Amino acid sequence: MKALVYRGPGKKQLEEMPKPALRDATDAVVRMVKTTICGTDLHILKGDLPTVAAGRILGHEGIGIIEEAGAGVSRFHKGDRVLISCITACAKCDYCRHGMPSHCEAGGWILGNTIDGTQAEFVRIPFADTSLYPIPENADDDAMVMLSDILPTGYECGVLNGSVKPGDTVAIVGAGPVGLAALLTAQFYTPAKIIVIDLDDNRLAVAGQFGATTVVNSTDGLAVAKVMALTAGQGVDVAIEAVGMAATFELCQEIVGAGGHIANIGVHGASVTLHLEKLWSQNITITTRLVDAVTTPLLLKTVMAGKLRPKQLITHHFALTDILKAYDTFGNAGRERALKVILTNE
Amino acid sequence: MKALVYRGPGKKQLEEMPKPALRDATDAVVRMVKTTICGTDLHILKGDLPTVAAGRILGHEGIGIIEEAGAGVSRFHKGDRVLISCITACAKCDYCRHGMPSHCEAGGWILGNTIDGTQAEFVRIPFADTSLYPIPENADDDAMVMLSDILPTGYECGVLNGSVKPGDTVAIVGAGPVGLAALLTAQFYTPAKIIVIDLDDNRLAVAGQFGATTVVNSTDGLAVAKVMALTAGQGVDVAIEAVGMAATFELCQEIVGAGGHIANIGVHGASVTLHLEKLWSQNITITTRLVDAVTTPLLLKTVMAGKLRPKQLITHHFALTDILKAYDTFGNAGRERALKVILTNE
Amino acid sequence: MKALVYRGPGKKQLEEMPKPALRDATDAVVRMVKTTICGTDLHILKGDLPTVAAGRILGHEGIGIIEEAGAGVSRFHKGDRVLISCITACAKCDYCRHGMPSHCEAGGWILGNTIDGTQAEFVRIPFADTSLYPIPENADDDAMVMLSDILPTGYECGVLNGSVKPGDTVAIVGAGPVGLAALLTAQFYTPAKIIVIDLDDNRLAVAGQFGATTVVNSTDGLAVAKVMALTAGQGVDVAIEAVGMAATFELCQEIVGAGGHIANIGVHGASVTLHLEKLWSQNITITTRLVDAVTTPLLLKTVMAGKLRPKQLITHHFALTDILKAYDTFGNAGRERALKVILTNE
Amino acid sequence: MKALVYRGPGKKQLEEMPKPALRDATDAVVRMVKTTICGTDLHILKGDLPTVAAGRILGHEGIGIIEEAGAGVSRFHKGDRVLISCITACAKCDYCRHGMPSHCEAGGWILGNTIDGTQAEFVRIPFADTSLYPIPENADDDAMVMLSDILPTGYECGVLNGSVKPGDTVAIVGAGPVGLAALLTAQFYTPAKIIVIDLDDNRLAVAGQFGATTVVNSTDGLAVAKVMALTAGQGVDVAIEAVGMAATFELCQEIVGAGGHIANIGVHGASVTLHLEKLWSQNITITTRLVDAVTTPLLLKTVMAGKLRPKQLITHHFALTDILKAYDTFGNAGRERALKVILTNE
Repeated sequence: MKALVYRGPGKKQLEEMPKPALRDATDAVVRMVKTTICGTDLHILKGDLPTVAAGRILGHEGIGIIEEAGAGVSRFHKGDRVLISCITACAKCDYCRHGMPSHCEAGGWILGNTIDGTQAEFVRIPFADTSLYPIPENADDDAMVMLSDILPTGYECGVLNGSVKPGDTVAIVGAGPVGLAALLTAQFYTPAKIIVIDLDDNRLAVAGQFGATTVVNSTDGLAVAKVMALTAGQGVDVAIEAVGMAATFELCQEIVGAGGHIANIGVHGASVTLHLEKLWSQNITITTRLVDAVTTPLLLKTVMAGKLRPKQLITHHFALTDILKAYDTFGNAGRERALKVILTNE
Repeated sequence: MKALVYRGPGKKQLEEMPKPALRDATDAVVRMVKTTICGTDLHILKGDLPTVAAGRILGHEGIGIIEEAGAGVSRFHKGDRVLISCITACAKCDYCRHGMPSHCEAGGWILGNTIDGTQAEFVRIPFADTSLYPIPENADDDAMVMLSDILPTGYECGVLNGSVKPGDTVAIVGAGPVGLAALLTAQFYTPAKIIVIDLDDNRLAVAGQFGATTVVNSTDGLAVAKVMALTAGQGVDVAIEAVGMAATFELCQEIVGAGGHIANIGVHGASVTLHLEKLWSQNITITTRLVDAVTTPLLLKTVMAGKLRPKQLITHHFALTDILKAYDTFGNAGRERALKVILTNE
Repeated sequence: MKALVYRGPGKKQLEEMPKPALRDATDAVVRMVKTTICGTDLHILKGDLPTVAAGRILGHEGIGIIEEAGAGVSRFHKGDRVLISCITACAKCDYCRHGMPSHCEAGGWILGNTIDGTQAEFVRIPFADTSLYPIPENADDDAMVMLSDILPTGYECGVLNGSVKPGDTVAIVGAGPVGLAALLTAQFYTPAKIIVIDLDDNRLAVAGQFGATTVVNSTDGLAVAKVMALTAGQGVDVAIEAVGMAATFELCQEIVGAGGHIANIGVHGASVTLHLEKLWSQNITITTRLVDAVTTPLLLKTVMAGKLRPKQLITHHFALTDILKAYDTFGNAGRERALKVILTNE
Repeated sequence: MKALVYRGPGKKQLEEMPKPALRDATDAVVRMVKTTICGTDLHILKGDLPTVAAGRILGHEGIGIIEEAGAGVSRFHKGDRVLISCITACAKCDYCRHGMPSHCEAGGWILGNTIDGTQAEFVRIPFADTSLYPIPENADDDAMVMLSDILPTGYECGVLNGSVKPGDTVAIVGAGPVGLAALLTAQFYTPAKIIVIDLDDNRLAVAGQFGATTVVNSTDGLAVAKVMALTAGQGVDVAIEAVGMAATFELCQEIVGAGGHIANIGVHGASVTLHLEKLWSQNITITTRLVDAVTTPLLLKTVMAGKLRPKQLITHHFALTDILKAYDTFGNAGRERALKVILTNE
């Protein structure tokens, strides 16, 4: 089968690879229908994630059709249409049983990381019963792909961890796909104001269409002053960091009000400075989280009810065989005005 | 009246000062019965807190008797015995009404900071109705003094913010008075293990008497390894920082397990390094808090029920007129084996 | 001044009454601008509330202008436009300090109950600083009146107590003003389905316009079956009782699913049957609440942000001097297709 | 093998039954080491539970040794010592994944109910990986048996659902084993007062030894008055119903204070009267729950840490072959001063 293979830092190839087979009774093999590319895949290609070995098929998102289910799989059968979660959950370990499958002893984020992933014609999914979701009838395929990772990530790490409440003022720093996913799902809780901050006017324009009440281009270095002006000098209730850099985490610390929350979503490659000399007395809560994807059923309900429209996040479509072109587009997101790309296994 | 007056960095004097008078209708003047010295007072004397002007009477803890109550005070009358909260609460501003009087627009921590404090024969208490508590009959005076600041601080900033739960493993870094207050109140929630870490064997011995299940002297640099050994390599559920230094905050980051909490109590004078390159994916919650002292009624109930014995924290007694000697003892806490000192206005 | 006076069961008159004066330093006298009539006023007129003595001026909602503020009032001054909360809060008692001013020792629901109310040209408001709210510039007066009682009641007793979450299925039993207020504010949390049940097709049509996803006329006795069909036999996550009768509380018990919530808003005049023989094992939470009106600031923010449009609840306008006509209209709500009526003191 | 078999209302026999075998790959067969009798077993024998068919082996508690594990069992192996949960959890269905395995689609409370139970030499446990727990080294066998049902029931349905907090006043109505389990675990949260109410002086004496601060014999009909006197007329923060009768639920309604909780544990055979005409405005929360046994790991930690001593609940020991005698003793608990009995498979 065709698959996108990581061949070491800077190197990726569309290769012919063996079709995966069942290994454990709780596995399923899924024929991919649609997949996508994640910002994390670009990190891998830079060589930032040492857990990813050369030879690995990338990708941890997508939908497909059950090709074969192991004897221990009870909830899915050949032919079922399924949503693949980016988090593989054994459902038995302490972490899984406490709602934190991101740290599952046998799973977690393993797809396209420590085992082969979804940017291929087929993928093997361990613990299929608790790592896949049935796709409801009448669901839109493209929308479903957004539920594998980007929407639960924005919602769990940003919105839930940030404790967004009705009437709140929320700032989202970073208007890439994950920041926009936080923007869409923050609106579940009816904040009064959502300020989105980025360096890219195009992305800010998108944020405005997605429900931001104010957008701030921080190129001029005046973002803090602008947010303070918008909040009568009090700072925001919730600051969501959706970039993963020291400067953006710093910005969050400067704009959060007393009693507020900083919810980190960004993948950080280096340590940051925490201003405890100022914040020790400010009654602040700072959270981090690798997505657990435990809210996928909730998100499915909101999508099927028409309350969340994930397709807004999709800007480009490609055939799976054109995945190198898709990487080019996604890797030059600013120039290409790309958010999420869909790859179809035709 | 006699009072301990701050005369600029490094300078304090026991002076004759004018007795305070009512200023606003909601004020009360309290004749002090007992007061104490806080670690924060030592910070002030080092010149670390620029909000404290020379000429200020220090102190934000104690009990006393209402000498005079303003016309707008409805809950207290001359002669009532009262507990003075370190936090002055107007009860009307948004912060007060949301349970965060530490940031009260007209109050907060002002005693011995921006207005004259309790290390004196008399003190003026603004918003007396909501900044004082009646002392129950049969209450022990010394125990009550511990409820002004140290116990709500350990409980709110350490235990509540750390979300201590039955069965948890809790580490408390720093066995000074506030760390020990966290140790006493953490036991409200029946954690399975409480590990206390300090450099001072005497304080660790006290921690053992107060309920620590393990004490670790971190002088040898092996604290992280020891905590990991005690937790099967998983780290602790809750790490409470009760020192206020970069090194102790670093230690908390190294011992907290996935899904765990770091509750900062320490007053930090400088920024610290936050290892988001490691913690971004560890589902960690970090909290800071200036004590709100909203749990004083709860703590009073537990003390009166015999469930919390605050007198354990008291090691020395002095007359108020010997306050300079008391500062010497408290300022050399290690050598003097001092925790909290009580000053009585005889 | 003109006022609507209760003269015993079944009797009300528009009378000339003395203008109220300040009694305590914390009082304010407010010149009424707009008020309204509550379903509770009809209960009073039936003689259902023995706390209301003959001679009482009714009404506990409205907006006005500060006519005179006592010496102890610090947050309002003559001429300020204010929103009157139906709950009077001393802000000092244990109940107030724990966020439950509905049970304030000196306040609570007293307006138009144990002291004279707002259906008059002037009203005395005790504890003005914490029982009034400033009206923001650009606010719509009619909308503000809905924040005195009906919206906090629907939100706190129905939506918050019911723990409405994104993706939930919510049933609201009763489409009168308070049920509709719950319907409007339930949407703060983006439930997937909101089923509104009533006997009146007109009110159900309004519910449909206000955001109900399904409306059910229960006249045919098939409401339970219809709700079960809509929920695949599992029952609803949240059932909000907004009527106050045994039959509607029974209905809630029949449609709530395992793990669900029944949030009672209705004012009940008689006991009901609780089916513990069925529910003991169903992991149900049942709540009751007299509105605390602690969410008024939050609701103000959502209104000013355009996220909540309270004017939808208003169907009729009258001059205050036509209040008897207004009572006729409101008392025949079905025939008159009346929801809330606004009375203006011209 | 020997087993206690239900032969219809009023009839039970110690019979020779076939040893159970694996049926599904996720099953384990456990050789029983110790089991016990539950109040629910007495209900079954009265014919109160129509789900239990004649011929059923009773029992849903105990510890044992893995005799055989199915191919799909990954966490247990032949020879492992295990604690059997009264709740069987598939870990895959929506209920299990939301922390409510009591309503598991394929499990829940099935042992000794819809499938054969633990009062036998061997038992088949479905979904063994998520329905059994490893017994820690050094654990006391008798203590472990108390973790199958009685302690999680008292803790989850009574203490957690009742939201017991430090400083609270808690009333427990019923001092049978489950009421005493609530009493032991309520102390995890350091309430100031725990009032235990029962008709049996012996059980009240036990309650006193287990930590009740006041015991009330309600035979004289003065329980409400006594509780009100103990709470300055305000009522209790938490009332735990541990009997399952209309009269005891009525008592809970009479003693609960404004803002309080009624946590129902009792198995009710008939409906009760709910006094909404009084409680509608009292901001009360009423909860029901079939135990989920999701806190078993937490309880294990507290037992192993010496914070909870379950053996206090055990009054009698028998050989499994003497189970009929054990039923006699347990069925005449008052006369025999029996709490929990242990049956050992020697």
